[in-house]
Amino acid sequence: MEETRESQEMLGRLIQPEIEEMIQARDYRNLRRAVAGWAPTELADLIRSLPEGEDVIFFRLLPRESATRVFEYLDSDRQQDLLESIAKNKTRLADLLNEMSPDDRTALLEELPAPVTQRLLGLLSPSERRVADTLLGYPEDSIGRLMTPDYVAVLPEWTLHQALDHIRRFGRDSETLNVIYVVDRDFHLIDDIRMRELILTDPDSKIADLIDRRFLSLQATDPQEDAIRVFKNSDRTALPVTDSSGALLGIVTIDDVLEVAEEEATEDIQMMGGSEALDDPYMSTPVVTLMQKRVRWLIVLFVGQMLTITAMAHYEELLAQAVVLALFLPLIIASGGNSGSQTAALIVRAMAVGEVRLRDWSRVFKREIITGLCLGLILGAIGMFRVFLWERLFESYGEHWFRIGLTVGATLVGVVMLGTIFGAMLPFIMRRLGADPATSSTPFVATLVDVAGVFLYFTVAAWLLSGTLL
Amino acid sequence: MEETRESQEMLGRLIQPEIEEMIQARDYRNLRRAVAGWAPTELADLIRSLPEGEDVIFFRLLPRESATRVFEYLDSDRQQDLLESIAKNKTRLADLLNEMSPDDRTALLEELPAPVTQRLLGLLSPSERRVADTLLGYPEDSIGRLMTPDYVAVLPEWTLHQALDHIRRFGRDSETLNVIYVVDRDFHLIDDIRMRELILTDPDSKIADLIDRRFLSLQATDPQEDAIRVFKNSDRTALPVTDSSGALLGIVTIDDVLEVAEEEATEDIQMMGGSEALDDPYMSTPVVTLMQKRVRWLIVLFVGQMLTITAMAHYEELLAQAVVLALFLPLIIASGGNSGSQTAALIVRAMAVGEVRLRDWSRVFKREIITGLCLGLILGAIGMFRVFLWERLFESYGEHWFRIGLTVGATLVGVVMLGTIFGAMLPFIMRRLGADPATSSTPFVATLVDVAGVFLYFTVAAWLLSGTLL
Repeated sequence: MEETRESQEMLGRLIQPEIEEMIQARDYRNLRRAVAGWAPTELADLIRSLPEGEDVIFFRLLPRESATRVFEYLDSDRQQDLLESIAKNKTRLADLLNEMSPDDRTALLEELPAPVTQRLLGLLSPSERRVADTLLGYPEDSIGRLMTPDYVAVLPEWTLHQALDHIRRFGRDSETLNVIYVVDRDFHLIDDIRMRELILTDPDSKIADLIDRRFLSLQATDPQEDAIRVFKNSDRTALPVTDSSGALLGIVTIDDVLEVAEEEATEDIQMMGGSEALDDPYMSTPVVTLMQKRVRWLIVLFVGQMLTITAMAHYEELLAQAVVLALFLPLIIASGGNSGSQTAALIVRAMAVGEVRLRDWSRVFKREIITGLCLGLILGAIGMFRVFLWERLFESYGEHWFRIGLTVGATLVGVVMLGTIFGAMLPFIMRRLGADPATSSTPFVATLVDVAGVFLYFTVAAWLLSGTLL
Repeated sequence: MEETRESQEMLGRLIQPEIEEMIQARDYRNLRRAVAGWAPTELADLIRSLPEGEDVIFFRLLPRESATRVFEYLDSDRQQDLLESIAKNKTRLADLLNEMSPDDRTALLEELPAPVTQRLLGLLSPSERRVADTLLGYPEDSIGRLMTPDYVAVLPEWTLHQALDHIRRFGRDSETLNVIYVVDRDFHLIDDIRMRELILTDPDSKIADLIDRRFLSLQATDPQEDAIRVFKNSDRTALPVTDSSGALLGIVTIDDVLEVAEEEATEDIQMMGGSEALDDPYMSTPVVTLMQKRVRWLIVLFVGQMLTITAMAHYEELLAQAVVLALFLPLIIASGGNSGSQTAALIVRAMAVGEVRLRDWSRVFKREIITGLCLGLILGAIGMFRVFLWERLFESYGEHWFRIGLTVGATLVGVVMLGTIFGAMLPFIMRRLGADPATSSTPFVATLVDVAGVFLYFTVAAWLLSGTLL
């Protein structure tokens, strides 16, 4: 039975009703038999697709070893549901936790409320407890949290034969066997050796003959984004992690890093849209939480945007004399917001992937001034043309049509430039202040530009139209 | 000499001036000696940091095998520069291309203009040429483009001993040795076996004894996003790729998938900001290109936004009677844009990670209607309160202050709901039309809401204020 992605999905769809039936009929014996031999990923897919309640029953029927693997494949929400349901059976809970791989367990424990984490830690065996405590000791979002101590290390004085024996004995739990690590007696990392070299070399030679003391490693306290960058620029699937003295603490595998990269991108996109980052997938976030994540920024922006009322009130008299000016207001401030939104997105992402750093701000500034000027001139010209054309066609704007067109055009140049400059600089300011550059969201930039745009528009208008319309 | 990330950076910084000096002094002998034994990643870092021109000289000094590895680590821009510089030496160029790994070569060839690609293809050896042609035959953004044919396959009737012999002979170029693949005589994939199983099992047993015919595989013609999803939900570092008949074509490794995931996120963020996706990193994109990528959407949005002029002109008389209405216009349309921007970001990302599908549109619609209503009520209340407060404090809005406050509040509720609905549904419409959901950018949503918001505001005003202010 082949398991290509499609056939796997089909499998789930075809068999699921029967499974649900067996669960409802409490036909546990047949159920157990039906899924015997399924792969953990398949079982996890099935659990995800089962209605609430039934997933728990199904999970509890799984044989112990398979249950642990399946558990690791589920997301933290579902994991917590299952944990709660089996909380009464302490032995079962302890088994499950002790058998999880340390990095997956860390990810689960850090998602849980602190008291629950403490209780669960108490269920671990002394040695697993020590591992969990160590991993949880690293700051959130640090590489330490992604580590697993399941790797194979060898000593330089061993022969390859000895090393392979060691791997046969201790490699069963290792997360990767592509690479093994060479350490000295103090556990300082001195090299990594690819498995292929071990296999392809004479078994009687020594590890010391293979090493060149050249290796890539990560530091446990460094941020996880660093790991993304290092993995992207190397062709490793696992990297060793050391403390500041160079002692080997564990390894990080690229599949965990892929997950981190996807989560960071999700957070950035959500923040760029102007809400706080969600902790869970969109669909499993309750509407109430969704609202909480969005309302704070909406209110902040709303209150900021109120400055436009004050600004406009300042020019109310001018407006009353020339109502025609109001017609162009939405167009003008939107143009500033649009160009600012473009720039902010480009810069925030360039910062996130490590391409633009704080010190690059002046280069970015120069590039964006030029871009903003050109874009502004193009939109300004189109805007002015629109005024002239409508005047020509419909005589829309009275005797001062030319000055009105000029006001619209000149303001557009300014407002688009303001947009690009705010959009380009706000991410730098945010990072400088220690905040995430993605905080400089599209709506944030747009709000700034709106307020500035209103002032600019009426200042230009007052100047260009004084003595005529005003 | 340890190569932690920091010390590596230090190394580059300390040694670079000396390297530059040697290059300028044409002291090639010492230069070659100074970098002998450097790792390819280090050499690539150094080349990236060298000024233009010097990088080429340095690259041409590298020994052949090391040059190929270094070349693979560089980004496509730098690769093209180097290619051009060595184009005169055909043999050198041919060697470089023939020795690159097939997936990296495909990535390079698809970046180049078609005529250059053709010329380079001509330099490949017949067998490498066949590989390149095959990989380039798959649609852009398909998994086929990420494949490498460098894997190890074995037959079920072999003993483990035979299999390990085979790996020793042919595994040298394999991208992963964590997993080897079992195929039948027609090269149909029938299983994958982890290297650890091979090593940990009695060498006299047969491959057939190890297989369970359960494996995960990808299809060459499927989109690359599918690969991201499958890798994220499994703990593999490489997956086999088959054609529709199940024949093994190659493997995809997770490091290439990590790169694709990062690129897709970058494109989405750039498009969400309202520009076209850049082909190169922001900093290496010339300002002219940057402008081209941004101006098209800016003009489209600008022309769309012009509808607000028409809309407002329609209400010019009403505006002249009640200039006070103009004061709240920027606040009102911005609030719709902000809530729309939040929603669009959430939905576009949820679609990108495969969490929300086309068929989920009605569930999303219901969620967002509720969210929009609540958010609208909150902002509407604040807006109304602002009017009442200013009236109380400064007597800003004359005798009809209550109806003005009501108009502002009611319009805000409507406009925020419009924003969430547009923001939620536009990504679905885009996908339904076959476009990227990320096309429903923040500025796009904001423009739609602006135009609708102007109509809504004046309709509500005309209704609530008729007979009083109007």
